[in-house]
Parts: sequence; C-alpha cells; structure tokens
Amino acid sequence: MSEQFDFIGLNELISKALAEDIGTGDITTLSCVPEGAVSKGKFIAKAAGVVCGTGVLTRLFQILDSRVRVSILLDDGSNVKRGGVIAEIEGPSRSILTGERTALNFLQHLSGIATKTDEFVRSIGGYHTHIVDTRKTMPGLRVLEKHAVCCGGGRNHRFNLSDGVLIKDNHIVAAGGIKPAVEAVRKNAPHTLKIEVETENLRQIDEALEAGADIIMLDNMTVPEMAMSVKHIDGRAITEASGNMGDRNLREVAATGVDYISIGALTNSVKALDISLKLK
Amino acid sequence: MSEQFDFIGLNELISKALAEDIGTGDITTLSCVPEGAVSKGKFIAKAAGVVCGTGVLTRLFQILDSRVRVSILLDDGSNVKRGGVIAEIEGPSRSILTGERTALNFLQHLSGIATKTDEFVRSIGGYHTHIVDTRKTMPGLRVLEKHAVCCGGGRNHRFNLSDGVLIKDNHIVAAGGIKPAVEAVRKNAPHTLKIEVETENLRQIDEALEAGADIIMLDNMTVPEMAMSVKHIDGRAITEASGNMGDRNLREVAATGVDYISIGALTNSVKALDISLKLK
Amino acid sequence: MSEQFDFIGLNELISKALAEDIGTGDITTLSCVPEGAVSKGKFIAKAAGVVCGTGVLTRLFQILDSRVRVSILLDDGSNVKRGGVIAEIEGPSRSILTGERTALNFLQHLSGIATKTDEFVRSIGGYHTHIVDTRKTMPGLRVLEKHAVCCGGGRNHRFNLSDGVLIKDNHIVAAGGIKPAVEAVRKNAPHTLKIEVETENLRQIDEALEAGADIIMLDNMTVPEMAMSVKHIDGRAITEASGNMGDRNLREVAATGVDYISIGALTNSVKALDISLKLK
Amino acid sequence: MSEQFDFIGLNELISKALAEDIGTGDITTLSCVPEGAVSKGKFIAKAAGVVCGTGVLTRLFQILDSRVRVSILLDDGSNVKRGGVIAEIEGPSRSILTGERTALNFLQHLSGIATKTDEFVRSIGGYHTHIVDTRKTMPGLRVLEKHAVCCGGGRNHRFNLSDGVLIKDNHIVAAGGIKPAVEAVRKNAPHTLKIEVETENLRQIDEALEAGADIIMLDNMTVPEMAMSVKHIDGRAITEASGNMGDRNLREVAATGVDYISIGALTNSVKALDISLKLK
Amino acid sequence: MSEQFDFIGLNELISKALAEDIGTGDITTLSCVPEGAVSKGKFIAKAAGVVCGTGVLTRLFQILDSRVRVSILLDDGSNVKRGGVIAEIEGPSRSILTGERTALNFLQHLSGIATKTDEFVRSIGGYHTHIVDTRKTMPGLRVLEKHAVCCGGGRNHRFNLSDGVLIKDNHIVAAGGIKPAVEAVRKNAPHTLKIEVETENLRQIDEALEAGADIIMLDNMTVPEMAMSVKHIDGRAITEASGNMGDRNLREVAATGVDYISIGALTNSVKALDISLKLK
Amino acid sequence: MSEQFDFIGLNELISKALAEDIGTGDITTLSCVPEGAVSKGKFIAKAAGVVCGTGVLTRLFQILDSRVRVSILLDDGSNVKRGGVIAEIEGPSRSILTGERTALNFLQHLSGIATKTDEFVRSIGGYHTHIVDTRKTMPGLRVLEKHAVCCGGGRNHRFNLSDGVLIKDNHIVAAGGIKPAVEAVRKNAPHTLKIEVETENLRQIDEALEAGADIIMLDNMTVPEMAMSVKHIDGRAITEASGNMGDRNLREVAATGVDYISIGALTNSVKALDISLKLK
Repeated sequence: MSEQFDFIGLNELISKALAEDIGTGDITTLSCVPEGAVSKGKFIAKAAGVVCGTGVLTRLFQILDSRVRVSILLDDGSNVKRGGVIAEIEGPSRSILTGERTALNFLQHLSGIATKTDEFVRSIGGYHTHIVDTRKTMPGLRVLEKHAVCCGGGRNHRFNLSDGVLIKDNHIVAAGGIKPAVEAVRKNAPHTLKIEVETENLRQIDEALEAGADIIMLDNMTVPEMAMSVKHIDGRAITEASGNMGDRNLREVAATGVDYISIGALTNSVKALDISLKLK
Repeated sequence: MSEQFDFIGLNELISKALAEDIGTGDITTLSCVPEGAVSKGKFIAKAAGVVCGTGVLTRLFQILDSRVRVSILLDDGSNVKRGGVIAEIEGPSRSILTGERTALNFLQHLSGIATKTDEFVRSIGGYHTHIVDTRKTMPGLRVLEKHAVCCGGGRNHRFNLSDGVLIKDNHIVAAGGIKPAVEAVRKNAPHTLKIEVETENLRQIDEALEAGADIIMLDNMTVPEMAMSVKHIDGRAITEASGNMGDRNLREVAATGVDYISIGALTNSVKALDISLKLK
Repeated sequence: MSEQFDFIGLNELISKALAEDIGTGDITTLSCVPEGAVSKGKFIAKAAGVVCGTGVLTRLFQILDSRVRVSILLDDGSNVKRGGVIAEIEGPSRSILTGERTALNFLQHLSGIATKTDEFVRSIGGYHTHIVDTRKTMPGLRVLEKHAVCCGGGRNHRFNLSDGVLIKDNHIVAAGGIKPAVEAVRKNAPHTLKIEVETENLRQIDEALEAGADIIMLDNMTVPEMAMSVKHIDGRAITEASGNMGDRNLREVAATGVDYISIGALTNSVKALDISLKLK
Repeated sequence: MSEQFDFIGLNELISKALAEDIGTGDITTLSCVPEGAVSKGKFIAKAAGVVCGTGVLTRLFQILDSRVRVSILLDDGSNVKRGGVIAEIEGPSRSILTGERTALNFLQHLSGIATKTDEFVRSIGGYHTHIVDTRKTMPGLRVLEKHAVCCGGGRNHRFNLSDGVLIKDNHIVAAGGIKPAVEAVRKNAPHTLKIEVETENLRQIDEALEAGADIIMLDNMTVPEMAMSVKHIDGRAITEASGNMGDRNLREVAATGVDYISIGALTNSVKALDISLKLK
Repeated sequence: MSEQFDFIGLNELISKALAEDIGTGDITTLSCVPEGAVSKGKFIAKAAGVVCGTGVLTRLFQILDSRVRVSILLDDGSNVKRGGVIAEIEGPSRSILTGERTALNFLQHLSGIATKTDEFVRSIGGYHTHIVDTRKTMPGLRVLEKHAVCCGGGRNHRFNLSDGVLIKDNHIVAAGGIKPAVEAVRKNAPHTLKIEVETENLRQIDEALEAGADIIMLDNMTVPEMAMSVKHIDGRAITEASGNMGDRNLREVAATGVDYISIGALTNSVKALDISLKLK
Repeated sequence: MSEQFDFIGLNELISKALAEDIGTGDITTLSCVPEGAVSKGKFIAKAAGVVCGTGVLTRLFQILDSRVRVSILLDDGSNVKRGGVIAEIEGPSRSILTGERTALNFLQHLSGIATKTDEFVRSIGGYHTHIVDTRKTMPGLRVLEKHAVCCGGGRNHRFNLSDGVLIKDNHIVAAGGIKPAVEAVRKNAPHTLKIEVETENLRQIDEALEAGADIIMLDNMTVPEMAMSVKHIDGRAITEASGNMGDRNLREVAATGVDYISIGALTNSVKALDISLKLK
C-alpha cells in the first residue's frame, strides 16, 4: 500500500474502527491478561487469494500500541496459498488481543476484494481490456477498497463526483440532450477532466462522438450490441462496458474489444478472505 | 430503524459518506442540471429480499438538502418483491442525483444483510434457536449492520469489547485456566455483564460450568459434539454455536438444541440487494 | 491507570482541556520565561488521600511537549500522606508552567474521587458488600471517574445505557408491568447482558424474581426494609442498594447483606484532593 | 444563560455527553417504551439553591429530539426552594428517559456551583468586594462553570491563559524579578490586557507598583497582612486576595478592603444540587 | 454560489471562523447590548468591484443565529458600484454585531478575488483564451476561492492533486523522461483524467505530444516563445501559459493563441474589496 | 515561531490544508516518482523581505512524512535578500513534492505579512508609536497571521472578541451612551481586561475619559484632529489611531504622538512574498 494513505484520513478511519470495537475498554482482556505479558503470532490465510490490507495492519497496531511490532511477509498484491503466513506480530498480549478483530476485519475485506478482482482479471487474460471499479463502495472505505482493486490487478475509475465527469441519462434529459450536456460540462469543469457519456444505442453514441466525448460508456448492452458499438466508435473515444458486469461472461465482453469493464460487485458484494491470527 | 441511531454517530457517518462521494463538488450535475429543476423518483428492488436502511435514506437527504422529501413505503424489516417500490423521493433534481449513489450504497448493503439473515432464520424455522451476529463487521458500520441483522429476524451479540465478556482460548491461557479467568473478570467487570466462555470439549465445558459461566460457546464442534455438549450442559448455562456457521447446515445445528448460532458471514460476506433509483 | 484509556478518547479529552486553558497562547509564560529554560519540580499532596490521575499527568505532558519527563512515584490507587510526593517532573520551563493548571485539575479531581471512595469502602470493611458508582458523572469525564472509583477500592456499575440493563419505574409503567418489561428486554438486548430491575417493595421484588431478573435494585428503602428484602431474595438474584447512599450509614446498609451499594455522590459531589506543583 | 454559548462549543459538549451516556443505544428504554409513547414531567429541586443550567437543558433535548418541549419556569440565577419546579418537559417518552441522566448531570453540577457562589457572596454582603472564580475547573466545562459563578452573584477572573496576564512566582524568578517580568509582558502582550502580579509581602508589592502592575494579588496572606497591604496600596492598583479562600472567613477578608477574592473551591469542590425529573 | 458548498465542509469552515473570532464570548456586545434588541443594516461596497461571498454571508448568520435574516440584493458575480448595497440584514443586534467581522472577512476577501479576476478577464476581451486559477490558495479556503474566480469570469484549474495530472520538471526527472512519466501516469491514474505536461521548450513539447499529452503547459516562456509553441502544437493538445502571469501583459499572452492562462496571484496576492456593514 | 502554536490548533490546520491539496492522493507523484527516491532542495526567496512561517514548514513535513528533514537557515523575523536560502530540505522525493505547494502557500503568505509590516514599522522609525494588527484576518489563519505581524516588528491587538474590550459606535448607541457602556462592561467583563472606546471627536473623548476608559481609539480622524486629540488626552489613556491606516501617511500619523496605529491591510490585503522550492 503506497504512502498516499498516510494523509487522507486513514489514521482517523482506523482510530474510529478501533473505538467502535473497544467501546469503554476490552474488559475481558484487561481482566484476564497481565499488563506485562507479551505474545507472538501469525496472520495466516485459511484460503488462497490475493493479499491486501497489510499497510492497515501495520498502522493499526502503531496507533493502538507502538510497542507492537508487525512484520509483513506478503505485501499487498501478493498471492497467498491456503495456510500461507501473511504477517507476524509480536508485542504486549493485551494490545494484540484487543486489536485482533478490527485488524482482521480490514484485512479480510480488502483481501476479499483483491482476490475477487484477480479472478475477474485472470478471466479476461489475453485481451487489452481493463477491469475497473465503480463508486459502489462501503461508506467510508472507498479509498482503501479502490486500492484493493489495484492489488488484484484492476484499475480505478473516478474516486468521486469531482474528479471525473460521467453524464448519465438523467443529466442528458435535464440538459436537453447529449450535446448541450457536454457543452455545459466543458464550460464548467476544469479542463483537466475528460468527459464520459453513458449511451444505450448507436444514435446516442453518435451524438456523444459528435459532442466530443472522451469516453463512451456502453450501458446494459448485449454482447453483440457492444461489439457493434466498439467497432462503430473505432478508436474515436475510449469505450467502457457497464451494467451488472459481475454476473456476465467477462471473456465474451472483453472479446468485443471494449477498453474498460466496470464492475460494482468488486466492492459491494465481497466475500471476506478467511484469515486468522494464530498466537504461539 | 429506531430513533436510537439519531445520537450515536449516524449523522456524522452519513456526512462523511457524502463528503467521500462528493469531493469538491458533483461537477457533472452542477453543469447539466439547472438549479431550479425538480424531480420525482422511486427506489425499486430489482430482486426480492428484506428491506433495511430506509432510516438512513431519509436522514441522508435531510442532511444533503432538507427540501428533498422521502416517503418510505416499505419499512425496515419488510419483505420486498422483485420490482417492489421501497420509497419515493421528490425534490431538487441536483440533490437527488448527487445523493443517489451514497444512498444506494447504504440501502443495498444493509438490505443485503437483512436478506441473508432472513434466509438463515427461515432455514431453522421451528427450532427455538436464534441467529446472532458477531464483531466481524465493516469498519465504521457496525451499529447499522447489527440493526440490519435484527431486521432480518436475527438477534445481536455484543456490540463491542466493553458490553460483553467473551473469554477465548488466549485469555484462558493468559489467566492460567478457565476458573481464574472467570474470577478475574468477575472482579473487574461491572456486575451487569454476563460471562461467556469459549470451549472446545467437555472438559472445558465442565470447567466453565464450575466457574459459573453464564454462557458457553461451543466452538468449531461437529454436530454430534454440539448435541452431546448441549445435553451435558442441560440448561445450566446458555449455549452458543460458533465457527464458520455460514457454511454449515444450520438446521442440523439448531436440532442439537443450542440456544444461539453466531455467524460472521452475516456481516462480512454480504451480497448487495440490487436496488435502483428510477426517476420519472 | 490501565492502557485501555489509550484508545478511548483520552488523548482528545486532554487536548481539548489544554486548548481550553491555553486559548491563543500563555502570554505570561511566553513573555517571562526564556525559550531554553528548564525546570524541575514535584507534585506534592497537601492532604492525605488516594492517588488517581498519574496516567493523565504523564500523557498530558507528552501531548503538550514530549521533552517534558514525568516520573510517577506513587501509582494510581496508592495512599499518599500529607506532604507526599506523587510525581517528579523535569523539562522546558515554559511547557511545565503552561500545563500545570490543567494537569492539576485532572489530578485533584480524580484523586478526590479515589479518596472519597476509599473512605466509603473502609467504612464497610468486613462485609462482602461492594461500593459501586453510577452514571452521575461530570459530562465528558465518565471513563476517568470510573477508573478513579476502582483506584479507591470501589467497583463499576454500567458505563452507559448500552452496556447494562436497568429497568426503572418509568420503564415498568410504559411496558405494562415488570414481567412484560423483562420479556421485552430479553427479546431485544444482547444475551450477554444481565437484567436489573428497580424495586421499592416485596411485591415488586417477587415480580422481578418471577420474571427472571438477574439483579434487583432496592431503591430508597429503609435499612430494615433492605434487610427483609435481601433475606427474602435469598440469593435468587444479585442485590443492590440505591438512593442517596452518600448520606446514609453505609455500615448499617452493608449489614443487611446487600451485595452492592451504588453511590452517586462518589462522582458528582467531590472535594478536590489538594495537590500542588512545587518547582525547585 | 446568554446566547454566547451558542457558538463556543456548547453543542459539541452536549452531543459528546449524550454519546458518552448512550453508547450504542439505550437498550432498556428502546425495549420497554413504545415508539409513540409521550410523557410529561417536571424538574424539581429537592433542596433549596440557585438554579443554573436551564439553557443546557433546553438545548440538550433539542439536540436529542427536537419534538421534546422544555419550558423553563425558573431562569438561571433564580432562587429555588426545596420542592420548587425548575422546568417542565413534554414529548416522546423514549427521548425524555434517554436524556434524563445527562441533563440532570449538567443541571445538578451547575446549580451546585451557583448555590455555593451565592452562599459566599451573601457571606460578604455589605462590602464592595467581589467573589471571583479561578482556572480550577472541570476539564471541558470551564465556560459553563464560569457562567454558573455569575448566576450565583460572583464575577469571572480570566477564562484562560491568553485573556489575562498573571505573573506568578515562577515567572518572576524566570524573568529575573518583578520589574523585568512586567516589562517583558508589556512588550509582548496585547495592550488591551491588564497585568496582574502575585505578591507575598510589602517588598514585592512595592516592586509591582513601581513596575506599573494594574492588579496586585495578595497570595496566602493572613488577614492582618492583607489589611496592611490593601492600605499600603491605597488604590494605586486593584487588589485580589487568593489562597485557599474557600476555607477562610470571607467576611474578615472582605473587611480588609480588598477588591476581589478568588476561590478555586467554587468550581473544583462542588456538591451537586439535588434535582430530579418526576414524570406524571 | 451554487449549493455544492452545502456539503463540502463550508459549515465547518464558517463555524471554526466564528469560533476563532468569538473565543469565549463577545464580552463587549454581551455587556452593552440588551438581549432583546434588534437592528437593521446594509452591507455596502465602499469601492466598485465584483461581488462574491453572499452565500457565505447568508449561511454564517444562519449558523450564528437563525433569527437573523439576510437578504441578498446582489448575487455572487454581480458588479457593484461604489456605495452599492450588496445585502440587507435584520435581526437580534447582539448576533449581528458578533458576526459582523467574520462575515466581512469572508466577503471582502472573496469579492477581492472576483474583482481581480474580472480585471484580468476583461483585459483579454476578444480572445478565446481563458483565465484559470492555480493551487496557490489560502490554506482552508480553496473551494471558496475557486468559486470566487468563477464569479469574476475565470475558470478553474484542478482543485487538488488527485483530480488532475500535472507532470512537472521534477516528475520528469524522477520518471526518466516525459514519455515514461506519461506512461506511468496512464497506467496508474483513472482513465477519466487528462494528462498535462509542463514544458519549457520545443523539444519538450515534441516529447509531450509524442507521449500523447492532453494538455501542454508553456512555463515561463517569453511571448514570442509562447507564440511559436502554440503554432507548433497546432491544436494537437490544449495549451496553457504559466509563470508569474500576474505581472505579465496578459493581452500579449492571449494574442499568442494560448488556450488558458493560469495565475497564482488571483488567489495568493489579493486586495480586499472594501465593504462595510452600516446599521441604521 | 514560539512553541505556543504547538497546542492551539496548528497541527489540525496543517493537516486540513494538506488534505485539501492531496484529495484522494497525489496521482502524478505516485505514478512518476519511485517509492525509494530521495531528494534535496532549498527554499529560496525570489524577492527580498522578512521571513515568516518556518515553524509551519518544519511541522508540515513532520506531519506529512517524519523522514523528511527540514533545516531552517533563516528564522522567523529574519530579513532575507533576493536569492537568499530560507531553509533546506532532504528526504523522500514523493513527500517533498506532495507537500511543496501547501508549504509554500503558508510560507509565502506569512512572509508577505511580515514583509509588509516591516515596511510600515520602518516608515515610522524614530517615533514611539507601535503598529498593531486587527481582526481583519483570513478565516482560520488568525493566530499565524498575528505571529507574522510580530515577525515584521508589529504588535498584536486583541486576538478575538473575548480577550479585549472595544466599545464601538453601535455598542454605545445600544447602551445609551459611552458612560453606561463602560459601566456595563466593567460589571460583566473580567477585571483583567482593559476597556477601549472608539471615539470620533473631543466630546466623545471626554466622555470616555470620564467613564474611565483605559484606551481611546481615534477613528477616522484627520491628522490635525488626531494631534489635537492626543494632546487633549495627555496621557490619561492609551491612544490608538484607526481607519484605513494602510492608505495613510503613517509618518504623519505617528508624529501626532499617538501610541498605536492599527492597520487591517496588514492581514487582509497581502502580496505573497515570492518563494520557491528548488530541488537539486
């Protein structure tokens, strides 16, 4: 995980997650475990997958108790086998036990995303097409989840409503057509942003091309429609397939020549990767 | 959703989720949609399930723009059919479009949990056993997710490390046995909390009973082991089955007579319920 | 003071307290004391008592200026005589002078609570009864104040409205009786919480017992009433005496055999323990 | 309570106090009390005193649930007899019960301060001397506590280290004498602040006068020493008596002619005024 | 001012600004002005310019005291003459006086930016070139300041480091050339962002064009160099002139045919527009 | 910069400024610059002036990445020539590039204030008069800006509405005259604050003197009026000239014998001092 997370709210997110779990104190641990006790342990994958969240793991224990040492054996983006050791931990037993669940909650969810992305990416191997995420993320976790997508080999779509323009059907209706919509955006948005237009048929595609759209989203099309659309666009704009892509045959979609496939299920329907902390 | 959420951080959570999505402004909407435009729309389930998150929906648009009116047609906990209308919305188009994605992210995830819980609960119909959640939740969303479990007919285990005592293997080792662990907790914890002990076999169950444990967790046992354990305990303590219960035949587990089954997958491996906002 | 305070808002509390006192800068100290000056000093009790707040003391100066070194000579819970040295301090004079008042405000208040609790606890020496606190605390200081009660030999009642159930008269009226109230709670509350019922007479006690209450509060009873009640309950539930206990003869109350005596005055009517910082 | 509290952190303080008490939800009330139930009640003084905190009371229920109506019958600063009704409340029963304890914690503490101040002020009736507070306040509550002092007829000393200059012994030592200390402050501090110097004897008083001090604190002096000092100063500076004044015969102190008496015990050793909420 | 500011931190910014000015209370106003007093007043420009900040004005008084009514007579972006009335205000005198300075601080600064931008924009009238802002803004005020630039007729460059790509000299050196830098960005950045490259000469321009840069910044060039560069690029990329543009003859720069001129002085060297509040 | 800024919100201010600029990540730098790369650089003044903000500079990089080392060569308050090196920096290239703009935004603005103040101060060299600032500051930056004024040789007026009393025309009207206004303040304000009264003519000056005002502001007077007023007051109160002083001939003003000249333009109409970071 790159250091960019250092200054975009990650510390606060982790602190709040710990606070959420600790409440007014981990009464079981404080009662049973002596203050001076130390422990060693390993974070072990109980299923194969792609690792993500080791940066959170390290930082979480720094925040909780800087005496805890976490050694990452498998960096974010690494493949891990069933039984593989992701990280080792050593330090005051109380803090390790108190932080365990919150650490695993992050690690399991993010690794679940990376693992799922990796499966999708591998399913379209050989094509130039890229798997990208969406804004269908867990509230508060978007930047981490988008990092997990990258760890799985995917790429990121826009992070929020200000760093990308996507003109959808309702925008088009409100603006009075694709052309006035694109013109309105061009006048108001920073010139550093590309303009993407959602389309459902060739007529809309032509309007978008004529208006100078940089990216054309092919929304909820059948595979043959997509293939025809990509061929029609013919490099005049970047193409992106969208619409329940998590349930589609992605290999067929990629074969249409589309540049990007965006999938909400990457981040909003995730199975946690089973990881546990085993103390010695 | 009960009004308790009003004062336990829900407003802040929603505000942060909106901020996360809006960034420095929804440039597409601000460019394309005139300030005075108004819209009407419906939140429609595209798959059958149990609704959860309507309270968040209402509050989110209050926070975003108090002129937006949300009418809930199906309260939290209601069954919704494919195509069913959960809520109607009316107000300034800009605010509806800007808030749409964040609102749906909450609604789809929480309804996904409620739907999954409902399936588990129905799968053990006829038994006295209750489905309960765990602390395996998305960071920052725990209280909402536990509310969703209730909407699906489940019950809640402890919310955090301070409002419930659960003595696990590592606590037992650190304290020098089940008995000293229970005694340590009894001395330190408020007398208003019950004491739960994790056990793996009859010997540990006997130690826990002798120490006066209120609740005995049967961890990672086979169904016959559970059945034998429940019979052995014979009402001297509350019983709780635990350990990858999401992958087990819950009907068999319930048939052992256990009081509670706790399932992490209820909250950490959730498929979003497909819901969309359709503007007229 | 246990390390649990590290991650439940203590840093924020201390920072806000310092900010409250410093305003836009300690103009007197910044004007009179040179930047490089260093000082040594001692925190001295000017009256005998029980020490509490040394963890806050250490942390406060870490937050204010990590170059200041605080050495604790008497840990939380220790008895201190008049003139006894609780801690020594050494470091930049400016920071010591600027932080002095806020540090003492914490230390004097918390030691005042510990000292008062200790007096109550000693007053019932020989009985099995425990002194417990209430929710009658200074806004924002509850966790610290409850720690102080433990330092004085008392125990803690619930920390807030979610980690303990206490069914009071108004709840009983609203629910339509003790039995329906207990049943409602049993259905809604996590099974990890005990259920306490407030009672004023034997009839209510019987209802509470029949409903399966775990703890019975004897509210505002005379000593003979309490004695009779404890005898009547006869171990079928935990007993707790309540109601202006700070003004009562606690030895008489304890002699009734009651298990717990809860006292609001422990935390809401506290005389500060006189402590001062003496610089060499 | 004046409206100045509206924008200096009072809302945040109240919200945090409510959050501290509510935790993850008032499980007893939510279980026992139906959502639609409404109640009426009265805040009644169970001992005579001076009221303070009604503004907090009103605001607290606005924050918790704006449907709750609070009618103040006795404004801050009013005398209340034993049994007197301070305020009436009406609204959703759940919110009233959930907010009751936090509201009373504020009201009882602040009224305790006002009542105590009033006693001190009345004890020196007939003299021109004013009772003032200090910085010995509960962390986080200073502005409210200083408001309570005013309600009891006292006046306020500086609110923090930036809105008043008080040169104490350690400052004098560090600066190399009273004169250089006063000069240093005069150079660095805004010209809008008066300069107060702490003195212990006539020599220091003369130095302070010569340096142009605006206020002279007479610290830990006997009554005859104070009398002599006040006479010696003879109006050339404002005078203030200080040093465990809470345990002194204030009438004797006032008789020395001193202008102000500052008392830490006003705010750091307070007995709560007994107030309760009686629902009909 | 569009409503986008409603949910991107504006309320917090205003609240903090008020808190910064109010401290522990506006002692002068609270002392001199009776609680019930009401006033009327006008915000009057004492110099001609372009108005900006009326949305802040309205919101500030809503936050401070919702009884204050602000009527905007000249919306953001309007021209105001010397003596022109921008807004009228009516309500409790105390709140108007307490909020006056903070309101004016926002209004004067933002109107200063709008006025300056307007001057620059008018100076290049007739050319297709746009004036854009930079990231040289006052810490904490960026979104407002960029809004002010729009009010003055300018356009916005990227808002922060994540919603626009600008490859500068140090990035080029680190990446090993313009081509590898552009490729690295293309691989990592969302495909929704354009790529801008800073260039100083024709060789770099050619490299940037070859690498497929969307925008080429002409940094610190003379007017003839700029003219030659624009001609050389010939529409193959968007062009932007940069480098102390605030001190340049913008008409000459625009005449080169460059698309955008970015000016740091628009926001970091601003003369406040003189505006005052005149109470009747 | 003195250490007082350590605990009055500076860290939060810097963190928010960084967050404002970084958004969801500095995508350009993260893409182009390898994680292990290190750089050295110098902060160089491109125009002569007075330095201010080096403390912010140091702290900003500590917050962003503690591995970055900043060496200050010219402390706050130093004169710097064109081309002079203010500070050197060394550390991870990514962090230096990411923090550069925010660091410069602080440094340039604060040095701009210090430089302007220095010019005003030097313009009245030889007179006893002091240049002081006002509350006309950038929202959120007041304490830093007032520090910058000191670095330029100026002094500070009150920091906010609670640490100084200034009775203006509207206060006088509301209170019913200067005398009742002063009396009201004297009763309500801490006795540690001086009382300043705004006057426009000799009659008001006499009223203020009679009421016992400590400081008399001469507002919007001509130079002869000021001279006459100072002479008339004759040391019975401190005098302060006010009213568009940034546009006046300050030498003439100082020659009237006035004690203080307060200038809003010091902080609300500032030209940034041109400073850049040059990497080797």
